Amino acid sequence: MATGDRAPVTIIGLGPMGQALAGAYVAAGHPTTVWNRTPGKADDLVARGAVRAATAAEAVAASPLVIVCLLDYDAAHAVLDPIAGALKGRTLVQLTADTPGRARRSAEWAAAHGIDYLDGAIMTPTTTIGGPSAVLLYSGPADVYQAHKPVLDVLGGTATHLGTDPGRAAAYDLALLDLFWTSMSGLMHAFALARAEGITAKDFAPFAAGIGHLMPIMIDTAVEPVDSRHHPSEGSAITSNAATLDHIIHAGEERGIDVSVVRAIKASTQRAIDAGHGGDAFSRLVEVFSEQGA
Amino acid sequence: MATGDRAPVTIIGLGPMGQALAGAYVAAGHPTTVWNRTPGKADDLVARGAVRAATAAEAVAASPLVIVCLLDYDAAHAVLDPIAGALKGRTLVQLTADTPGRARRSAEWAAAHGIDYLDGAIMTPTTTIGGPSAVLLYSGPADVYQAHKPVLDVLGGTATHLGTDPGRAAAYDLALLDLFWTSMSGLMHAFALARAEGITAKDFAPFAAGIGHLMPIMIDTAVEPVDSRHHPSEGSAITSNAATLDHIIHAGEERGIDVSVVRAIKASTQRAIDAGHGGDAFSRLVEVFSEQGA
Ligand SMILES: NC(=O)c1ccc[n+]([C@@H]2O[C@H](COP(=O)([O-])OP(=O)(O)OC[C@H]3O[C@@H](n4cnc5c(N)ncnc54)[C@H](OP(=O)(O)O)[C@@H]3O)[C@@H](O)[C@H]2O)c1
Ligand SMILES: NC(=O)c1ccc[n+]([C@@H]2O[C@H](COP(=O)([O-])OP(=O)(O)OC[C@H]3O[C@@H](n4cnc5c(N)ncnc54)[C@H](OP(=O)(O)O)[C@@H]3O)[C@@H](O)[C@H]2O)c1
Repeated sequence: MATGDRAPVTIIGLGPMGQALAGAYVAAGHPTTVWNRTPGKADDLVARGAVRAATAAEAVAASPLVIVCLLDYDAAHAVLDPIAGALKGRTLVQLTADTPGRARRSAEWAAAHGIDYLDGAIMTPTTTIGGPSAVLLYSGPADVYQAHKPVLDVLGGTATHLGTDPGRAAAYDLALLDLFWTSMSGLMHAFALARAEGITAKDFAPFAAGIGHLMPIMIDTAVEPVDSRHHPSEGSAITSNAATLDHIIHAGEERGIDVSVVRAIKASTQRAIDAGHGGDAFSRLVEVFSEQGA
Repeated sequence: MATGDRAPVTIIGLGPMGQALAGAYVAAGHPTTVWNRTPGKADDLVARGAVRAATAAEAVAASPLVIVCLLDYDAAHAVLDPIAGALKGRTLVQLTADTPGRARRSAEWAAAHGIDYLDGAIMTPTTTIGGPSAVLLYSGPADVYQAHKPVLDVLGGTATHLGTDPGRAAAYDLALLDLFWTSMSGLMHAFALARAEGITAKDFAPFAAGIGHLMPIMIDTAVEPVDSRHHPSEGSAITSNAATLDHIIHAGEERGIDVSVVRAIKASTQRAIDAGHGGDAFSRLVEVFSEQGA
C-alpha cells in the first residue's frame, strides 16, 4: 500500500490492544513506529512493515501523533514521565483505561510540558479495531481532536468526541463498564441459581437472552425519571422489587449459594423504602447511590 | 363473541396481573368467573361480561380450571386453605410468584387434597397478556398441562412446559429475575456514576444501549464454560476484570457515591483470585457463587 501521503503514527505499548491499534495503521499504509517494554512483542508488526524503535524517546521522535495503550496510568507514566521533553510540541493520545480523575491529572501533566493531549477510551475488543464495529470515545481540546480525526478514524467504527473535559471519555468508559460487569455478575449468579436447581446453562440461556433484549427498553424508560429526579412507579413499585429480591435471597440460601451481591442490592432498595420512597419506581436507586450520606 | 364451546375459567386475584388474565379470557369468549378480596376490582371485568362470585368457594365451584394470581404464597394459602374441599377434583394453576421450595410445598398440599396442580410463572408485564409477546412458564404433571394447554394458551405469546418438578417454573423465574434486577441495579449505578461526572442519562443512554446489545452475545459465550465448569480466559482474565472493578470503586469514591454493590462483586472476583483462578475468565464466578463455603 502507498504510504507516501499518510501521516506517521507512533504506538507505545504492544499488549493485545496496542498490537491491534498498530496493526490497523500498518494495514492502512501509515508509517508506523512502535515501542514496547518487552521488545519481542513488535516482531509480528515489524514483519508487516512497522518500525521498531530502540527506546520510547526514539519512538516519540518519529511521529507528530503518539498513541499510548498500556496496562494503566501507573504504567503509562512510568514510560512517559522520563520522556516528557521529547513529547513537547507533539500530540499524545492516551488510550490506556483509568479513572476520570487520573485522566484529568494526566492532561495537567501534559499541559505543563507543552504536550497536546487527548484522552480516549476503547469500548470494544481488539478484534473490532480497524473494522466497522469498533467504538472509541475521546475527550480533550476540540481543535486537537479535529486536527487528528482523519488519522484516529483509521481505528475504525464509531468515534465520538465527548467534549473538552479530558476526564469525560474515562467517565463514560467507567460508567459503561459498571453496567457491563454488574450485568455480567448478575448473569453468573443467575447461572449459579439455575444450576443449584438442576437447570443447565444451555437450557437457561434462551430465556436469559430474552431478559437481555429487555435492557435497551429499560434504559430508554429510565432516562426521563433519572434526569428529572422524579421516580413515579408505573408498573411495579420498589417495595415489590424488594420482595422479589428477598425471594431470590431465600431461594439462594435454601440451596447454599452465595447471595452477597443480591443482599447489597436489596439493602439499597431498603434505604429507598426507609426514606419513604417505597412507592417509587426502581430508578429511585440512582438517588440512593448518589446520596451516600442520606 | 360466542361462548358456548369455550371452557369456563375461574380467576382468583384481581391485582393488575389478575385483571389482565381475566380480561384475556373474557375477550376470548370464555365464561369467566372472578373473585378478589376487595370486590370492587371486578367492576370493569363484570362490565365486559365476567361473573363476580360472592366467595372464593363459589368462584372455584364455577370452573374445572382455577387460576390464582395473588401477591405471594402467603396470600394464596390464606385464600385457598379454607376452600381445599371445593378445589378437590379440579385443576389449580398457581401463577403467583414465589420460591421453588414454596412451589413444591404447594404441590404437596394440592396432592394431599386431591387437587391437580400446575405451577406457573409470568415473565412479561400485564400489557403483554393475551398478545404475542407474553412469556409464561409452567411446571408440574405433563398430562395436566396437556389437558389444559388450549385454555392456558389464551394467555398468549410463548408458553413452555419445563417438566414435572413443580418448582421448576419458579426456579427459572427467580434466576431470570436475578439477572434482570442485578442488571437494573448496574444500570442505576452507572447512571449515578455518570451523573456524578456531569453526564445526563439522556447523553449516556445510547452508549448504555450498546452494552445492553452485548448481553445476548455474552450469554451465548458463557454456556459452554458454565456447563463444563472450565473457565479458560480468551479475552480478559478475572484479574484484569478485578482491576476494572477497582477503577469503578475509586471513581465512585472520588465522587462520594455508594459503591457497596460493586464492592460485593469485586470481593467475589477476589475469592476466585485468592483460590488460584486469577487467570480464568469471569465465568469462574459461577463456581465462586456455587461454592459458598469455599
Ligand atoms: N484488550 C482489550 O480487549 C481492551 C479493550 C478495551 C480497552 N482496553 C484497554 O487497553 C489497555 C491495554 O490493554 P491490553 O489488552 O493491550 O493489555 P494490558 O495487559 O492491559 O497491558 C499490557 C501492556 O502494558 C505494558 N506494561 C505494563 N506494565 C508496564 C510498566 N510498568 N512499564 C511499561 N509497560 C508496562 C505491557 O508491556 P510488556 O509487554 O512489557 O509487559 C504491555 O505493553 C488497557 O488499559 C485496557 O483496559 C483493552
Ligand atoms: N404486575 C406484573 O406486571 C407482573 C408480572 C409478572 C408476574 N407478576 C406476579 O403476579 C402476581 C400478582 O401481581 P399483581 O401485579 O397482580 O399484584 P400484587 O400487588 O402482587 O397482588 C395483588 C393481589 O393480591 C391480593 N392479596 C394480597 N394479600 C392478600 C391476602 N392476604 N389475602 C387475599 N388477597 C390478597 C390483592 O387483593 P386486594 O385487591 O384485596 O388487595 C390482589 O388481588 C405476583 O406474584 C407478581 O409477582 C406480576
